[in-house]
Amino acid sequence: MTEQPRGVAILGSTGSIGRQALDVIRRLPGRFRVIALAGGNNHTLLEDQAREFHPDLVWCQDGDRGMNLRAAAGPRTAWATMEEICADQRIDIVVAATSGAAGLLPVLTALRCGKAVALANKEVLVMAGHIVTRAAEQGRAELRPVDSEHSAIWQCLWGEDLATVERLILTASGGAFRDVPVADLAAVTPREALRHPTWDMGRKVTIDSATLMNKGFEAIEARWLFNMPMDRIEVLLHRESIVHSLVEFADGSVKAQLGEPDMRLPIQCALSYPERMTGAVAPRLNLARSKALHFEDVDLGRYPCLRLALEAGARGGTWPAVLAAADEVAVERFMAGSIRFTDIAKVVDATLSAHGGTADPVLDEVLEVDRWARELASAEAARLEPLARSR
Amino acid sequence: MTEQPRGVAILGSTGSIGRQALDVIRRLPGRFRVIALAGGNNHTLLEDQAREFHPDLVWCQDGDRGMNLRAAAGPRTAWATMEEICADQRIDIVVAATSGAAGLLPVLTALRCGKAVALANKEVLVMAGHIVTRAAEQGRAELRPVDSEHSAIWQCLWGEDLATVERLILTASGGAFRDVPVADLAAVTPREALRHPTWDMGRKVTIDSATLMNKGFEAIEARWLFNMPMDRIEVLLHRESIVHSLVEFADGSVKAQLGEPDMRLPIQCALSYPERMTGAVAPRLNLARSKALHFEDVDLGRYPCLRLALEAGARGGTWPAVLAAADEVAVERFMAGSIRFTDIAKVVDATLSAHGGTADPVLDEVLEVDRWARELASAEAARLEPLARSR
Repeated sequence: MTEQPRGVAILGSTGSIGRQALDVIRRLPGRFRVIALAGGNNHTLLEDQAREFHPDLVWCQDGDRGMNLRAAAGPRTAWATMEEICADQRIDIVVAATSGAAGLLPVLTALRCGKAVALANKEVLVMAGHIVTRAAEQGRAELRPVDSEHSAIWQCLWGEDLATVERLILTASGGAFRDVPVADLAAVTPREALRHPTWDMGRKVTIDSATLMNKGFEAIEARWLFNMPMDRIEVLLHRESIVHSLVEFADGSVKAQLGEPDMRLPIQCALSYPERMTGAVAPRLNLARSKALHFEDVDLGRYPCLRLALEAGARGGTWPAVLAAADEVAVERFMAGSIRFTDIAKVVDATLSAHGGTADPVLDEVLEVDRWARELASAEAARLEPLARSR
Repeated sequence: MTEQPRGVAILGSTGSIGRQALDVIRRLPGRFRVIALAGGNNHTLLEDQAREFHPDLVWCQDGDRGMNLRAAAGPRTAWATMEEICADQRIDIVVAATSGAAGLLPVLTALRCGKAVALANKEVLVMAGHIVTRAAEQGRAELRPVDSEHSAIWQCLWGEDLATVERLILTASGGAFRDVPVADLAAVTPREALRHPTWDMGRKVTIDSATLMNKGFEAIEARWLFNMPMDRIEVLLHRESIVHSLVEFADGSVKAQLGEPDMRLPIQCALSYPERMTGAVAPRLNLARSKALHFEDVDLGRYPCLRLALEAGARGGTWPAVLAAADEVAVERFMAGSIRFTDIAKVVDATLSAHGGTADPVLDEVLEVDRWARELASAEAARLEPLARSR
């Protein structure tokens, strides 16, 4: 019996995760059919992707360029919004690989329509984890992790009872500045921050890795993906990025998932679940050739963003949405050269400190808080700019 | 709803694994009832165990000491052979922790009677894996591993499809002489060989760890436990004994199970399956406190016993039974000071070389081959004795 290829939509197809998802699909011929592609500003790449995968539906950020795109994809290709894409009946799996708050509404639509969502967009669960998990329950839909850390935990939990989990242990490489003295962090440049020691990822997430804000987001995501209280989620420094994360069980047994740092493996897991498809897309791990594996506790003094994130996660409600919005603004300003690396935590901290907080916000409240936090963070960043210039 | 305690028989209760199994049961009160204890020569300990656990059935190696034992256990305790124990209806799980060929018939009985067998006796599967797995099928019985390596693999396979396994990777500490120059191995003493760098185990298995024969046995056991061809089973040196073994899947993902080197965890897993029982008996792992984890390929030149075992496993039939019998004789002679450490491999090699081999032996043929191999190995050891004395 030959299985019907699974229908896939990729939101954010021109980004790092989107491109790697298409590579996985390319290397597993006959298993998937790309029904929809939604990209951002990189029209040339989106046109190339449309020419190769012939999607039925396309979307890109400016509508007037859409005509070229449809010409590239072929005559039967239609224009559709991300939410129309997510409701389309031909689609079994939505890869949510846009970044920022823009992914939230499409993901909610996909879940309510009962699609499996392979979730690479961190902000979706960070901003509105309680709303997203409720939508998944309503639609009887699966949320599948794409982050290597959550994929590792997910794989370690297959065949296990969630009630017997003692701790989830997220590993962190420590980012670009793990060996830079804390006193020197104010002077590091965006260019330096973009040199990740082990992973090749998008720009925003690479900066977030240097501050460990990324790991804080992941702790909040893990809280929702695995229905686990924040105090059972820990972060462990692991410089080599080989052990992608671990689970400790009630009997003391610890399981881990390992692999070369290559996002195509967790993407493949999320697309192929509940199967493991033969044919490794990512390079195979050779432990005897790899260097020794090291593990260290995290120094929260070095990583104030992680501390802020863990606190916001524990408070819940609208706090994580404020965290994510303020971080997005602060990272943009750092990459533009307007504020210093160490100002990222300051902007986030000041924004969180000014926030009142709502315990169980509805979606509109989350979106309102997101706007409010961006404004406040922008003002806070502007206040810090003269200091950055004077360094 | 309170669950009925599971009825347990422990064969080899006074040995290292037997004592640790009783410790697990002691620390999980109300979950298990010790129905039967079978011990060897350590009558004092067996009497203490009988006094504490009040088994219904007891057995020990000399019958005439049995009267004291029953006095210790209490008036309702009866005397029974190991095979009678294994057929008893009150018993759900048999912990097979005797060593050597003596465990074979009781294990076959237990499996044919549909009991779960927690298997710590290596020789059972090494000698007669095809007969044992067939008995498990007949009795619809479960074979559960107790070795830390097989337990690790087993745990990594929960919720996975065996058809998607690419490789089983057994880790090996390298034993007592991993850093001793090969040229000096002829002069090492039994006392030195019994100092295992990471595990506290019985004497025979500690010597077998120093030669890596133990890892060869484990590869053959893994072949039967997980129905995996020998060429998909690999051995990796891992000095710290924290990663107990790994599984690589068809998609390139690798899963591992980790823990402090303490046999009580795999014993607990085998007893509590398919649950994980809350309350860790073994100490919890702290990776940040542990030293770095290292992995190396094995040098088969340093470990000729491993090479012999992998070859015997690949040939199958009666070859592994010959391997196990010859090794048992050789290790006894080494511990008695009669032959040198490096003679263990010579005795085993000479015995295997003299063997004709049968492809699919019945049990009597296996037992006959076992006797033959012991005789031949004894003669071979005797031939080497003068050389050992002359050193």
